[in-house]
Amino acid sequence: MKKSLLDCKFPEALKTMTDTELELLCYEIRSFLIEKVAKTGGHLASNLGVVELAVALHRVFDSPKDKIIWDVGHQAYVHKILTGRADKFDSLRQLDGISGFPKSEESEHDVYNTGHSSTSISAASGFAAARDLTGDDYNVVAVIGDGALTGGLAYEALNNIGDSNSRMIVLLNDNGMSISANTGSVSKHLRRLRMSKKYIDFKKQVKKTIKGIPSVGEGIFQGIEHIRDTVKFAIVDGAIFEALGFKYIGPINGHDVFDVMEALQLAKDFDGPVLIHAITEKGKGYKNAEINPNKFHGIGPFNPMTGAELKPASITYSKIFSKKLIQLAEKNPKIVAVCAAMTDGTGLDKFAARYPDRTFDVGIAEAHAVTFAAGMARGGLHPVVAVYSAFLQRAYDNIIEDVCLQKLPVVFAIDRAGIVGNDGETHHGLFDLSYLLHIPGLTVLAPKDGAELAAMLEYAFSLDAPCAIRYPRGSSPDFSSSEAFESFASLSNYDNYGTFGTFGTFGNSESDGKPPVFEPGKAQQLIEGTDAEIWAVGKMVETGIEAVRILKSHGYRAGLVNVASLKPFDEEKFLKAADNYKKIITLEDNVAEGGFGEKIAALLQKHSKTKTGLLALAWPDRFIEHGAGDLLFERYRLDPEGVAERIREFIERKA
Amino acid sequence: MKKSLLDCKFPEALKTMTDTELELLCYEIRSFLIEKVAKTGGHLASNLGVVELAVALHRVFDSPKDKIIWDVGHQAYVHKILTGRADKFDSLRQLDGISGFPKSEESEHDVYNTGHSSTSISAASGFAAARDLTGDDYNVVAVIGDGALTGGLAYEALNNIGDSNSRMIVLLNDNGMSISANTGSVSKHLRRLRMSKKYIDFKKQVKKTIKGIPSVGEGIFQGIEHIRDTVKFAIVDGAIFEALGFKYIGPINGHDVFDVMEALQLAKDFDGPVLIHAITEKGKGYKNAEINPNKFHGIGPFNPMTGAELKPASITYSKIFSKKLIQLAEKNPKIVAVCAAMTDGTGLDKFAARYPDRTFDVGIAEAHAVTFAAGMARGGLHPVVAVYSAFLQRAYDNIIEDVCLQKLPVVFAIDRAGIVGNDGETHHGLFDLSYLLHIPGLTVLAPKDGAELAAMLEYAFSLDAPCAIRYPRGSSPDFSSSEAFESFASLSNYDNYGTFGTFGTFGNSESDGKPPVFEPGKAQQLIEGTDAEIWAVGKMVETGIEAVRILKSHGYRAGLVNVASLKPFDEEKFLKAADNYKKIITLEDNVAEGGFGEKIAALLQKHSKTKTGLLALAWPDRFIEHGAGDLLFERYRLDPEGVAERIREFIERKA
Repeated sequence: MKKSLLDCKFPEALKTMTDTELELLCYEIRSFLIEKVAKTGGHLASNLGVVELAVALHRVFDSPKDKIIWDVGHQAYVHKILTGRADKFDSLRQLDGISGFPKSEESEHDVYNTGHSSTSISAASGFAAARDLTGDDYNVVAVIGDGALTGGLAYEALNNIGDSNSRMIVLLNDNGMSISANTGSVSKHLRRLRMSKKYIDFKKQVKKTIKGIPSVGEGIFQGIEHIRDTVKFAIVDGAIFEALGFKYIGPINGHDVFDVMEALQLAKDFDGPVLIHAITEKGKGYKNAEINPNKFHGIGPFNPMTGAELKPASITYSKIFSKKLIQLAEKNPKIVAVCAAMTDGTGLDKFAARYPDRTFDVGIAEAHAVTFAAGMARGGLHPVVAVYSAFLQRAYDNIIEDVCLQKLPVVFAIDRAGIVGNDGETHHGLFDLSYLLHIPGLTVLAPKDGAELAAMLEYAFSLDAPCAIRYPRGSSPDFSSSEAFESFASLSNYDNYGTFGTFGTFGNSESDGKPPVFEPGKAQQLIEGTDAEIWAVGKMVETGIEAVRILKSHGYRAGLVNVASLKPFDEEKFLKAADNYKKIITLEDNVAEGGFGEKIAALLQKHSKTKTGLLALAWPDRFIEHGAGDLLFERYRLDPEGVAERIREFIERKA
Repeated sequence: MKKSLLDCKFPEALKTMTDTELELLCYEIRSFLIEKVAKTGGHLASNLGVVELAVALHRVFDSPKDKIIWDVGHQAYVHKILTGRADKFDSLRQLDGISGFPKSEESEHDVYNTGHSSTSISAASGFAAARDLTGDDYNVVAVIGDGALTGGLAYEALNNIGDSNSRMIVLLNDNGMSISANTGSVSKHLRRLRMSKKYIDFKKQVKKTIKGIPSVGEGIFQGIEHIRDTVKFAIVDGAIFEALGFKYIGPINGHDVFDVMEALQLAKDFDGPVLIHAITEKGKGYKNAEINPNKFHGIGPFNPMTGAELKPASITYSKIFSKKLIQLAEKNPKIVAVCAAMTDGTGLDKFAARYPDRTFDVGIAEAHAVTFAAGMARGGLHPVVAVYSAFLQRAYDNIIEDVCLQKLPVVFAIDRAGIVGNDGETHHGLFDLSYLLHIPGLTVLAPKDGAELAAMLEYAFSLDAPCAIRYPRGSSPDFSSSEAFESFASLSNYDNYGTFGTFGTFGNSESDGKPPVFEPGKAQQLIEGTDAEIWAVGKMVETGIEAVRILKSHGYRAGLVNVASLKPFDEEKFLKAADNYKKIITLEDNVAEGGFGEKIAALLQKHSKTKTGLLALAWPDRFIEHGAGDLLFERYRLDPEGVAERIREFIERKA
């Protein structure tokens, strides 16, 4: 069998490859990516878009001496292949396998860990400042997408670098896409540059013009500045970047590895900040991904021939949010939706299709999303900000100062709360209860299933105050199926089937005589017990039901309560439980610190419930690695078996 | 006595004033501001700088129908005078008096509450979107300083507005200053515009040119666009703003009220986003403030004749931080300092004077400050980020993702933790323990006095990991004085005078036989008791000592422990205390939710210390109003008397 170029020792091998080998290598990398990601799932389209950029970077620069920082980081697969990790791709994003993001723990070539957008330029400027101060001598390159450039952090960094005039390179990977379609004036500006320039002629033009310049001895960049004046169509003013103090090179064809190498070489020789504007195509070279880059942005395992995902789509919380929001918006014209470059991920795409005028995708700009929503609320609307838990961290101050301090009616639909799985550390939503529960005036809710999410959403829009609903990635359990009910009824005498209605509203109790799906400020008794009672938050209710079943098989009868409303909290019901049970367990998919369990401990102390023991089950005080969600729950003993076992130990422990 | 123009009914009276009256009004407002702020203290220089802007705004627009949003908001005094609140200025920033910031609770003219920088454009775009969607018809104006424009949030908003092309006005109040000297490329860009244009001729030129334009009927802004081409020196391209999709008018003289009115009128008639670039002078019209605008940025009561502050400067925590940092930096070349436009406030000014190359003022860009520091740490340096507690909220995500996830050695010197006093709601640092304690791998410390702060700082730089030190606004108590010692010794048999050494290091125990000022991870026994033990955090240690004294006069002996290290926490010592005392009190200047008290409750539960009662004293779950610090502590029963009384009730309560 023919030896693959991928078997070479990277990054060293790149230095001596012929032009033909470089082109062949790009081809092999694409095949490799499609084959591997089809098996493991992952970010495919963005990686197919940066093959030539990554090859050129490792050809021109000496990693890890030179620092290459990948913004967001989900497009660093090619970089991983080119730094000796091709043989680990079967474990990509798997528990204990290589990460889908740069990880300094994994390789010395991953000089800076990323995961959240728009940090690379800021971090790169830190490297550059350290280098200049310590007398080191290396190059610093930030690779950033046009989407990430909509984040204010990128601007703050550009603004400071232009001022310091520090030597560094920003390689702008402009695929005109970001995650959803890109928005904003800067994006328009880039589009204009793209449209008006024949960037594909860059190489030819530069070569021709350089030959004609007499003063090449003054340094090649001097030459380039000259070119800019004469060959306007090849190298143009990037007005914003020039105004920010950067030398601008571009636009260039980001899929011509030689063009990219040449531009990088030019930039490397310049003593100051340079921005290279490279045009790329998301999904390049794989027809399925070129046609539908959003689908292949982050994807599960798929059939590489057809592009079809192997696991059929399920009824996710995001979809339920989407459907219910459209229902509510039909009746309430005040409802508008805001998201930060995540229309698809958050389920807002359908809402946007139905109500384009009432949908605001602000780009990767979470802080603005929240303050903008606050402004709209002041203007008489009732906005929902649909956002992932980990990314809302970026708007923590805006939630406090703009929304809650002003008591404004803004709904936070917080998707991907808790463990997200394979994306890992930077994407888990394990802090939201800790960063939300202490904010005065904010209602905080967590549904146990999709029906409850729908009811909570309806309730949130009935409030004239801020409200956050946090719910997990993935499918909602279907507690309304008859099997689920049978199984459930076997655990409890208490008939509360009505609390598991599908898509019921929080006020449906009058209409059908069943208890309502969601009662504001109330916790729901799901199972009556005798030996202990579990107070479970959101997704962990399902785990709680399973744990009760396992405990029953060991002869213990544990009760189960769905907390539902974390703030305000049903203190009255809880204090009764504290009187009735000697053992209370809290169960949440948040870190223990600042979470629900701590509130409960404080409450027990406050009311001197000294005879009640508490076992607070939550995620430990450490960053949780990537891996399939169920494996992580198992590893940290937060799966049904682990939970049941820990509760059993707790019950059997002498007080 | 002659009737003052300030006695008119505002804002209505503005509409009919003659030109002479308008000019006279500006003069009277300046006198009024100087007289009033000299008594109450407050933000003087910035308000003197916007007198004409505010008068022109209320002349041209109809507040509150038209929405005027003041970025940051500390320059809204003139707006308050012009909206019927002149008679309330004796109560400015006082408990239950008018706020130093816009407050919708105070007036319908304060349409949006501000306090943190760079939110106005984002909020204004929310108003504009709401107006366009609901069919309302009003104008929206964001008034923003050049300093606030360095914040990424402002850019995120500009980027989106330019794209939406929504009708709104940004009035850029360019005093070339921000709070410290302004930094960044945008600032340079503005400076170039200022320098190269004779902005003072604006009015004359515009008038002259407008007369010469034949097609005035096409709308005045059409005319202006024409002017821009012909009268280049009057209206120039603001390259960045034009690139962002804004019409740019300027620069104009912000102290010519008629120029400002004219520019606002032009902007009002344009159907799209407009940016007016007005040049102003901070402190305008008051020589003392013109000469030293930083001193008069936020000032206590002062002598209006001399400009001298009435209260002599004391030894603040900021000063101790400053002095110790310089000491440490002499020996350790890796130490560099980062701040966000707060060199003076944080005490970094002296460090900057000594080590200009090692000081990085990034502008009002807290997120970038932290990520930039992370980059420098990766580059081998040991940065300290000096920042106020309330403003660090803006970098919450960066602390997690950039610093702690990568375990980087970055020190957070968090000033203004706890109650700050007269600045109020938006400036209190009451959330930092709640937003920091749950972050994995972050050491969190709080000193009881300046000596301990110095020792903690030294320790922080000895760590190869992230470390946060939070300390309050104002003076450090001097526990090392002989009176303090005598008084202190009377409370306790335990001789721990050594723990109150001045500027001692955390490792000084070997040298003089005294216990060290600070031991990593250890809590300090300050007073031994029998009836109860207080575990106090930071500034509240002083309150604890006083409370112990009061309790003693009632016949109770309470012990006192200085928590010092919140994370890692001295569990061993605490668990012993829980065995020895039936009553434990926690005392902290943070909200109760997510704070130290909750950790302690959880710890008691975890270790089944069911016989120990806990009283957690902290700030309640609401936004705390402005007012003098001591009055606020008294109102919320967190002053020594209040604390002693609550502890007495707790001790006397039956368990």
